[in-house]
Amino acid sequence: MTRPSLHIVGVGPGDPELLTLKAARLIAQAEVVAYFCRHDRVGHARSIAAGHIGPGARELRFAYPFTTERSVGDVSYAPDMAAFYDACAQTLADATSAGARVVLLCEGDPFLFGSAMYLFDRLAEAIAVEVVPGIPSMAGCWSQAGVPMAHGDDVLCVLPATMPGDQLADWLARADAAVIMKIGRNLPSVRDALVRSGRLDAAVYVERGTQPEARVLPLAQAGDTAPYFSLVLVPGRRGLR
Amino acid sequence: MTRPSLHIVGVGPGDPELLTLKAARLIAQAEVVAYFCRHDRVGHARSIAAGHIGPGARELRFAYPFTTERSVGDVSYAPDMAAFYDACAQTLADATSAGARVVLLCEGDPFLFGSAMYLFDRLAEAIAVEVVPGIPSMAGCWSQAGVPMAHGDDVLCVLPATMPGDQLADWLARADAAVIMKIGRNLPSVRDALVRSGRLDAAVYVERGTQPEARVLPLAQAGDTAPYFSLVLVPGRRGLR
Repeated sequence: MTRPSLHIVGVGPGDPELLTLKAARLIAQAEVVAYFCRHDRVGHARSIAAGHIGPGARELRFAYPFTTERSVGDVSYAPDMAAFYDACAQTLADATSAGARVVLLCEGDPFLFGSAMYLFDRLAEAIAVEVVPGIPSMAGCWSQAGVPMAHGDDVLCVLPATMPGDQLADWLARADAAVIMKIGRNLPSVRDALVRSGRLDAAVYVERGTQPEARVLPLAQAGDTAPYFSLVLVPGRRGLR
Repeated sequence: MTRPSLHIVGVGPGDPELLTLKAARLIAQAEVVAYFCRHDRVGHARSIAAGHIGPGARELRFAYPFTTERSVGDVSYAPDMAAFYDACAQTLADATSAGARVVLLCEGDPFLFGSAMYLFDRLAEAIAVEVVPGIPSMAGCWSQAGVPMAHGDDVLCVLPATMPGDQLADWLARADAAVIMKIGRNLPSVRDALVRSGRLDAAVYVERGTQPEARVLPLAQAGDTAPYFSLVLVPGRRGLR
């Protein structure tokens, strides 16, 4: 076994104490710490890991060229993001080539809707990459909300709120348990899909789960907009008691 | 905020270094440590947490009255398990009533197919319970396998292999990404459902993920039986590159 050149490390949903022991160790040992962020922000992953980054570590700040100000449907979105990920991957490859211990931080779990996957896809054939799982944001949210999610033989579906309302209602009617991600401006259509699938009463809204400003409330009582760090939980059938 | 009387603590998929910092702290502070196990085994959760249990901690060993030797369909299964969970919940309630710090260990994440949910359901109205999320076994497996799972607007479905093969094939044809749990003796029907949904080539089999004896291989090359700690990953569409 050669030592991995790059560790992609999940840092969990927000509470710094939800880092794993392995993540804390690898971050403390890292000579280079990379992370994604908005151009005008510190970066959520960097904030969560802050207590473990060594004073001598070099930091690589991967600032997204745009976030919500450009639509995914915009013709320039995909090529510009691809060029950004290409450049980030090259920067990481250069950092590892000198033999340094390099860590790429990732909110939640790296392989569950994480930007780090796009760098993994570009690097995994050329250099040794080890992925360290993190607590997914949805697990942080359902634990904080006290909502047991999947029991016995339940089917659990993780659904993006960006899909058309008809499709979302169809998925919600089929699934035993569901997590709806990417709420943001889609909260009214999510509520509508829950009503049409008969599942509004069970739905729980969680905002900034595991963070100090966390909010948990029945979805029926939530407003019409939600921040990026929010999701909706629809718990599964109880099955055995 | 009153101090929770009981912490239900996820210990992750197997690698003891995948405990969270919070789990390690709570286990070390606990005066009473409870866990499920087979009557003839130490218990997987107990093994994962072993390095953090204090020398003076009292242990509550909840040995299942039966596991695979009785079928879920057996008429005695549900009432006997319910009576078992009732007794476990009463034992935990008694332990907390003296003001002791009590931790219930749970493999993986407590609210994702964990037995601890049945105790949470029985106790949460009567005593203060805090749930600490753990790395789900599926996240441990996809990280170890190097299989990025869900991208962009993918729908991810977590499916039990116990459902009829027709239904499983239907779910697999609809989902972008899928995790198939509870493989065991169902491996041949899982393979058949993957073939019928056109997804066999992408399917990856992971056995005992994050544990020393872990195995990762294309499902097409796996045998016809699998241990309890095994699952199948079908990664999502790549979307943006």
